[in-house]
Amino acid sequence: MPMNFAEEHGGNIHRASEVLGRGIHEILDFSANINPLGIPPALKEALIANIDAMMHYPDPEYRRLRSRLSDYTGVPSGSIIPGNGSSELIFLLLRVLKPKDMLIPAPSFSEYEKAAADAGITMSFFELREDEGFRLNTERLTRELSAGIECVLLCNPNNPTSTLATYEEMKLIVEHACRCRTMVIIDEAFIELTVGGASNSVVDLVKKYDNLFIIRAFTKVFAVPGMRLGYGVGREELVARMRLKQQPWSVNSLAACAGDFLAEAGEYLHRTSAWLAEEKEWLYKGLRDIRGVEVFRPDSNFVLLRLPDTGPDSGTLKDRMAKKGVLIRDASNFRFLSKRYIRVAVRDRASNRRLIEALKEEML
Amino acid sequence: MPMNFAEEHGGNIHRASEVLGRGIHEILDFSANINPLGIPPALKEALIANIDAMMHYPDPEYRRLRSRLSDYTGVPSGSIIPGNGSSELIFLLLRVLKPKDMLIPAPSFSEYEKAAADAGITMSFFELREDEGFRLNTERLTRELSAGIECVLLCNPNNPTSTLATYEEMKLIVEHACRCRTMVIIDEAFIELTVGGASNSVVDLVKKYDNLFIIRAFTKVFAVPGMRLGYGVGREELVARMRLKQQPWSVNSLAACAGDFLAEAGEYLHRTSAWLAEEKEWLYKGLRDIRGVEVFRPDSNFVLLRLPDTGPDSGTLKDRMAKKGVLIRDASNFRFLSKRYIRVAVRDRASNRRLIEALKEEML
Repeated sequence: MPMNFAEEHGGNIHRASEVLGRGIHEILDFSANINPLGIPPALKEALIANIDAMMHYPDPEYRRLRSRLSDYTGVPSGSIIPGNGSSELIFLLLRVLKPKDMLIPAPSFSEYEKAAADAGITMSFFELREDEGFRLNTERLTRELSAGIECVLLCNPNNPTSTLATYEEMKLIVEHACRCRTMVIIDEAFIELTVGGASNSVVDLVKKYDNLFIIRAFTKVFAVPGMRLGYGVGREELVARMRLKQQPWSVNSLAACAGDFLAEAGEYLHRTSAWLAEEKEWLYKGLRDIRGVEVFRPDSNFVLLRLPDTGPDSGTLKDRMAKKGVLIRDASNFRFLSKRYIRVAVRDRASNRRLIEALKEEML
Repeated sequence: MPMNFAEEHGGNIHRASEVLGRGIHEILDFSANINPLGIPPALKEALIANIDAMMHYPDPEYRRLRSRLSDYTGVPSGSIIPGNGSSELIFLLLRVLKPKDMLIPAPSFSEYEKAAADAGITMSFFELREDEGFRLNTERLTRELSAGIECVLLCNPNNPTSTLATYEEMKLIVEHACRCRTMVIIDEAFIELTVGGASNSVVDLVKKYDNLFIIRAFTKVFAVPGMRLGYGVGREELVARMRLKQQPWSVNSLAACAGDFLAEAGEYLHRTSAWLAEEKEWLYKGLRDIRGVEVFRPDSNFVLLRLPDTGPDSGTLKDRMAKKGVLIRDASNFRFLSKRYIRVAVRDRASNRRLIEALKEEML
């Protein structure tokens, strides 16, 4: 079995558990950016109550789920396609769109490059510059789009930089791209994990712009990466073409029931928002106190750091932290980053405190 | 949303429920070939006990699951690749193997053709002849393989004909194909749903023959089509190549726990075997009593029937039966079959009796 995939992403707590000889629950995982409030109780109850759904094939059209997602996003259900996490949708979308070229801001989530390579798409990269705090420079981006490119794939907020482009900035990009006949794909996997939450999403623009496709997921915000539920939102004709190419029944029957919980998700999203607003800032300040470490201001539930040039590099630090039962993400394999970058998730106060203490010990 | 997929396969009880205005539990579904004993209690308990697994990404290498599947099949875990039902594995395997041509016995499961088309493979068909009871004529098949073909995809027992080739017959085909340098893929999705069960599987031959790949699944035998768990078994090098092309985390975290149940599956498999041996024969005899209907002797938990030339065709009959709350599979869209063929699952005695009564009423 090839090991590269396992090493490449955060969140492989199984491997850590085995290597460290500790149970999953004894490990503090800052390498995966999951909502630390955990699976919403109402969602967990719904899953248990629906366990017999496993005895039936999911509805191949996922009508009930799509209807609930329609209520949640305000977009017609014909514009919505559920998928096995956002991963399936990214791969599927690119296979269906098959643009001859695509622009990808970087550093960003590495699966985009894999999906583009899989679909035989020529990639170019729009560098998010460190001296701009890794923020999306919309002016520079729109200029590049004017040069003519078939497709651009943005992640908002962006992983691993934790930078959010505003609704207005995104709208500007989509409008400009529309004039340039450029397709805009936006991965909003973390959108509810920003201050302001879903109000930062441009999903409503799908109704107006044919050149826009949004990818969202339950994974991060509802802390269910193992459930495998993402959804794409785009124009109906494109969604229909994707459906024809999609693996049958790729979303399992329990995940297909999860949409029912959305109507009750308000309280949980509210708690999430309150936790994030406070804890993101607390962690940001705490990390900045660590000597020599540069901390990039986070807009989402994770933080990108640059380690000082002297001292352990990202890989060494990751291994040393793991021995303490604290997993961090070595960010050196993100394009344009080096062995001086790590990424950590924002968690609860006690965990965040332990992270800072452990980092301080290592950085002495 | 395109409707063709939903219409094409059996088991779309959701659509039926909506159209008929009845709950899922009020409908007798003979269109999907699922073990009517239902989800094994030990498996259901394991799923509920592991519901928190949804909060973690599945192990990207599925080591624990593969280890349990290794114990279950007797094949090293490096030769095993889990997938999102057998569907994902068929599509993935053909994309990786990319044979220039492939032979598919027909009538058989329609997804094979879709997967081959998706991978750009030239298909030819080996006709299972009605005057041979739709049984695989191994002599004729080996002769065709001698002509030189890169790949052959068999379903054993075959869907929709419910015909089983014996272990010895399959071994002969694999050996012959090996000499012809032909890859043999065998979909054994129903293998535990035959009299003799897993002893009919040639999965052990994977250790000896590099040209063999077997696809199995939890779906049918453990009555969990909604859980989405299949697995492929083949030589390690091929499995590793598939893994590299596979969607990350395509098997959800609950399904990944399902392997633990296999050690306790013996009693359930025993009950399944006892039910099948008796009920398959009972239903076969009962169906034969219906005037004008030709019944092909089943080796698995479903039965192919030919309707008389006079009277309702398969589509009409399906609709009429549905109005009675009894779903059957219109088999007319299987290659080489016509609007005179239907397929029904074997279920419990009371349900089977109702099926026969309802059919008799329609065939008067």
